[in-house]
Amino acid sequence: MLIIGELINTSRKVIRDAVEARNAAYIQQVAKEQEEVGADYLDINCGNLVGQELEIMKWLVEAVQEVTDIPLCIDSPDEAALKVGLSLLKGSYQPVINSLSAEEKRYTAVLPLVKEFRAKIVALCIEDAGMPKSAADRLRIASFLVESLEKDGITQDDIYLDPLVKPLSANDKHGVEVLEAIGMIRAKYPAVHFICGLSNISYGLPNRAILNRLFVIQTMTMGMDGYILNPVDKAMMGMIYASQALLGKDKFCNKYLKSHRKGLYD
Amino acid sequence: MLIIGELINTSRKVIRDAVEARNAAYIQQVAKEQEEVGADYLDINCGNLVGQELEIMKWLVEAVQEVTDIPLCIDSPDEAALKVGLSLLKGSYQPVINSLSAEEKRYTAVLPLVKEFRAKIVALCIEDAGMPKSAADRLRIASFLVESLEKDGITQDDIYLDPLVKPLSANDKHGVEVLEAIGMIRAKYPAVHFICGLSNISYGLPNRAILNRLFVIQTMTMGMDGYILNPVDKAMMGMIYASQALLGKDKFCNKYLKSHRKGLYD
Repeated sequence: MLIIGELINTSRKVIRDAVEARNAAYIQQVAKEQEEVGADYLDINCGNLVGQELEIMKWLVEAVQEVTDIPLCIDSPDEAALKVGLSLLKGSYQPVINSLSAEEKRYTAVLPLVKEFRAKIVALCIEDAGMPKSAADRLRIASFLVESLEKDGITQDDIYLDPLVKPLSANDKHGVEVLEAIGMIRAKYPAVHFICGLSNISYGLPNRAILNRLFVIQTMTMGMDGYILNPVDKAMMGMIYASQALLGKDKFCNKYLKSHRKGLYD
Repeated sequence: MLIIGELINTSRKVIRDAVEARNAAYIQQVAKEQEEVGADYLDINCGNLVGQELEIMKWLVEAVQEVTDIPLCIDSPDEAALKVGLSLLKGSYQPVINSLSAEEKRYTAVLPLVKEFRAKIVALCIEDAGMPKSAADRLRIASFLVESLEKDGITQDDIYLDPLVKPLSANDKHGVEVLEAIGMIRAKYPAVHFICGLSNISYGLPNRAILNRLFVIQTMTMGMDGYILNPVDKAMMGMIYASQALLGKDKFCNKYLKSHRKGLYD
């Protein structure tokens, strides 16, 4: 299971304010908090600060690395910003690049970075024709991505497919399409990984936190093994540990029992 | 989705006390409460009152039928008690018999009742050699049950297979075995239904309610479509409705939104 902490993102007002004030202490606190609750990687995203993104990416990565060795996931729509972030990383871990897609221009621009930095790659099921409209669409785009990446020297184990989660409020098949797609892709490429952000699923519906948590459990049941989420959400992390135990992926339920003792279910 | 309300069971002290006092009003209140929150059937079980079971089964079924038309699920280890309960049912619905198994004696004794009362049948994956020890064991026993029942004139649509849930605390594969078994059996017999009681999964572990709810969501994701549970547990019922919506089984999320307005997520 790969948990990428999502909180250092300038689309969140608290982070944007901290960045504008160059308040490194606040960013560092958010980094430490996510590390302490069990995030495996931290996402670093300042993609909405167009014009200043290269400078801010540098500042953010340096600020975070001053206080923690946790691996980073460099996240940007701009390949130059990805490169700035990746070039500054310390340590010998494999970074995560978030993301490439089956869109020709994006694929071509990001692939060299995946190779240069021996990165794990989040690969979105989007193509030049647009977003997937069914489970079969996702299987087709995922097949293109996995086969292209393998041909380009990336192993399945370094690929995290994002099947693309769309709001249930727009179409009541948007959840089950993703679940079916995971099953179909997993059967075809058993060594590939899956990752997604969650919050889209519940957009426009009440009790969003409940729907998000249930969708984590459903997608985990089908084989998803990565999430970009808020790891400080105790209830969410508790659900993930409990779900792992029920799925037979937690020897003697040790992590579940540890989570219980830490109060994740209180 | 088939929800069988489990509360009228003399293994619960409050029910046993009400039975001993012949307090029909209390039994009737428990029946109405379960009906009002959306149970499809009510389980009637007094199997632990050995020696008085026939008399009490009659008294319970009559008491419940005085105040509600909700279909009943007659539940006993004693075929004579099953027969007493089934014989008293009013209305033209298909009752549920809980349960038969692949044990020769039990299968032979209960089958005539399934036929006589045109009942839906809960079929447990247990055989004379004992409990299943793997997903493959469950597939084998389920195959025997479905094929025997079909040969005996029962359609797949009237069969609710119980894959048998064992405690996770005894073996950390006990959850995933059930999930895999559902997938395997569903692929082989697409028209058959699944049902289970839940509470065994969490026996001996902390936060049992959380584990039980997660296991409902996981088993639903794999295709389980029946549960014997406490329908008065608002959080559990809310999870089931939300899960149905995410699985694409709730047109326009109507039931989910209705559950929201009823306060199931408060």
